[in-house]
Amino acid sequence: MVKAAILGIGTVGGGTAEVLAKNRELIARRAGQEIELKYILCRSPRPGHPLESLIVHDIEPIASDPEVGVVAECMGGLSPAFEYVSRCLSAGKNVVTSNKELVAERGLELTALARKMGVNFMFEASVGGGIPILRPISQCLAANEISAVYGILNGTTNYILTEMIQRGKSFEQALREAQEKGFAEADPTADVEGIDAGRKICILADLCFGKNVPPSAITTEGITHITPADIACARTLGYKIKLLGRAMRTGPNSVTAFVAPHLISQSNPIANVDGVLNGIAVRGDAVGEAMFFGPGAGALPTASAVAADMIDCVRDPGTRVYAGWWPSEKGYVTGPDKLSCRWMVRTAAPLAEIAAAFSGVRFINAPNAAADEYAFVTAYMSGEELAEKTAGMDVLAKYRVLD
Amino acid sequence: MVKAAILGIGTVGGGTAEVLAKNRELIARRAGQEIELKYILCRSPRPGHPLESLIVHDIEPIASDPEVGVVAECMGGLSPAFEYVSRCLSAGKNVVTSNKELVAERGLELTALARKMGVNFMFEASVGGGIPILRPISQCLAANEISAVYGILNGTTNYILTEMIQRGKSFEQALREAQEKGFAEADPTADVEGIDAGRKICILADLCFGKNVPPSAITTEGITHITPADIACARTLGYKIKLLGRAMRTGPNSVTAFVAPHLISQSNPIANVDGVLNGIAVRGDAVGEAMFFGPGAGALPTASAVAADMIDCVRDPGTRVYAGWWPSEKGYVTGPDKLSCRWMVRTAAPLAEIAAAFSGVRFINAPNAAADEYAFVTAYMSGEELAEKTAGMDVLAKYRVLD
Repeated sequence: MVKAAILGIGTVGGGTAEVLAKNRELIARRAGQEIELKYILCRSPRPGHPLESLIVHDIEPIASDPEVGVVAECMGGLSPAFEYVSRCLSAGKNVVTSNKELVAERGLELTALARKMGVNFMFEASVGGGIPILRPISQCLAANEISAVYGILNGTTNYILTEMIQRGKSFEQALREAQEKGFAEADPTADVEGIDAGRKICILADLCFGKNVPPSAITTEGITHITPADIACARTLGYKIKLLGRAMRTGPNSVTAFVAPHLISQSNPIANVDGVLNGIAVRGDAVGEAMFFGPGAGALPTASAVAADMIDCVRDPGTRVYAGWWPSEKGYVTGPDKLSCRWMVRTAAPLAEIAAAFSGVRFINAPNAAADEYAFVTAYMSGEELAEKTAGMDVLAKYRVLD
Repeated sequence: MVKAAILGIGTVGGGTAEVLAKNRELIARRAGQEIELKYILCRSPRPGHPLESLIVHDIEPIASDPEVGVVAECMGGLSPAFEYVSRCLSAGKNVVTSNKELVAERGLELTALARKMGVNFMFEASVGGGIPILRPISQCLAANEISAVYGILNGTTNYILTEMIQRGKSFEQALREAQEKGFAEADPTADVEGIDAGRKICILADLCFGKNVPPSAITTEGITHITPADIACARTLGYKIKLLGRAMRTGPNSVTAFVAPHLISQSNPIANVDGVLNGIAVRGDAVGEAMFFGPGAGALPTASAVAADMIDCVRDPGTRVYAGWWPSEKGYVTGPDKLSCRWMVRTAAPLAEIAAAFSGVRFINAPNAAADEYAFVTAYMSGEELAEKTAGMDVLAKYRVLD
């Protein structure tokens, strides 16, 4: 029997306690021993909570209890999560976390600390919620040189876009409804501006390419500016607009990572990842492209990943630190501006101006398009080239096309 | 440094040798030591083969060489693969295999032998080729009670169906072209009759539900009878016809497993797994539904999975036997006849006969349908109930609808 602690009793922490209780026997069988929840750290008192007897308000009883073998950090945010996780790792505890901000910002130090202490630090739940993705990348694709990883990494924005695409809602209306349903926070900035997806693409890039990609080094573009007219143009082409996080190797010692809305062909399975689901694709030199879909958030799906990490920690102590990654040099992460792709452009410019700037665009005749607008798809060009060609032009919208 | 042997130098064996050579440095980094290929077992001489110097014709030099730490079986077939793998496991070697027939038929004994010997026996490549699926099920979803697993498990039939659906080809024409392109064997029986998919759903059921599901206990229906008229009816409904392997828990000590063509909604991401790709979905009580897509066959994708297993064996010797499974009692596996679902039926029966047999069917008006035929979707009912209702009726085709 090993004792466990959960830090935080919100959605994910509560879900983890529920899964540990509900599937107790099955988990014991798979972990090789029972995992018994001994502590829940919760900074405020919770009178009447069904697990009230386990609640402590400080990290020390947990970190200093020799019975505790594994700690699940489900608080979110950087502080005090970082201090608590560091304290537990330093005390020789295995730690698992669902906290993407923590892993994206401080994962480099925390994986190094875990290696130094000979304990596990695992964070499957930090990307893609319940979708198995980090372990498959680290283990199942370990024989591959990975060239690119991309995907729908944020369920809130995918829900909003799905409502806009399937039911013709405006961004504002879809956001309001998502907030009413609990799929979006009162302050939705981190989701709708692509910040949350940015943290996740950083973690994926860290693991896929082996060096640190800090969130501050990448550009993120959100979905607030997407209009029903943009969506109609995409549909006419047989595409959907989806918010993608993307990271790709661009040289022996450089990667590009960014978040931006993309046009994605309806024949790509990722285009059919709708609602709050997430979908992630990984390209490797041996495997080609492998894709992973599922619930990217929610109490039980995320708890599924947290509990799986706890099982793994307990079953093979000391062996399962994810590969970890190394510090990166200045200039390792580059923005997407040099990345060549096709673009969908919607503009109020007169035809003569478009013809003067571009050769060989493909016009889109979306039904109900405004009479004084043109929409078209360009040839392959970088963002810089597009900016040059459209300098001074009245551009209403532009999106990368994923090919 | 650890020495390795590959049994068989066909598509997968050759691909594995190629991946080990090509990504040698990266593999050494991830495995914690170099993996050097020392032997290739090939029963016939291969004069002029680039790896000729490594070729041996018998298992004994490999099994008795104390330098060999890991053996990759890529021969296919039951014999002598079973004898060779048993010999290597008994000699204390870690063994990985891509051989689905071997794992489906003899996996119960081989995992038990590996456990007894304290070595690893891994077979990620035996299902879904390069797609990470068995390890995610065993590890990432370990906290879940799994209720069902299903998917497109055979690339050859999926290629044929995709050609029929997208280009209106007949089964015969699509099969012939698949054979010309090397996607189907000269004798395509194992693929087109669902036997190959059957082996894979058995392995998935073994791992998901913990007890042995022998291929002889399941029913398999193939794709040879699917016609363009069936496909047109499905399309009119917004569905595609795909060959699915399915296994689900039906009681505390019973599972249903089978292979059959199904109608699957185009809004299900699995419906867009086209060509030679495979796609697998797993339902768990915590995660909900997670899906895994990618190349289900081919030299390098399959080698990607074989090499990943080799890395895992070498990195953590003795810890990575897949959970394994237990013998099953008589009656544990039941056929799909009691499974309730909607059905698409195409029939030459007169309307009065249909009306007498069914209440509340939904008729399908496929373009260009034959004037003397009806196609419709039934309410939920079991295969037994459907057989009763259509007894004596001139049924041209019937398919389960996946909901």
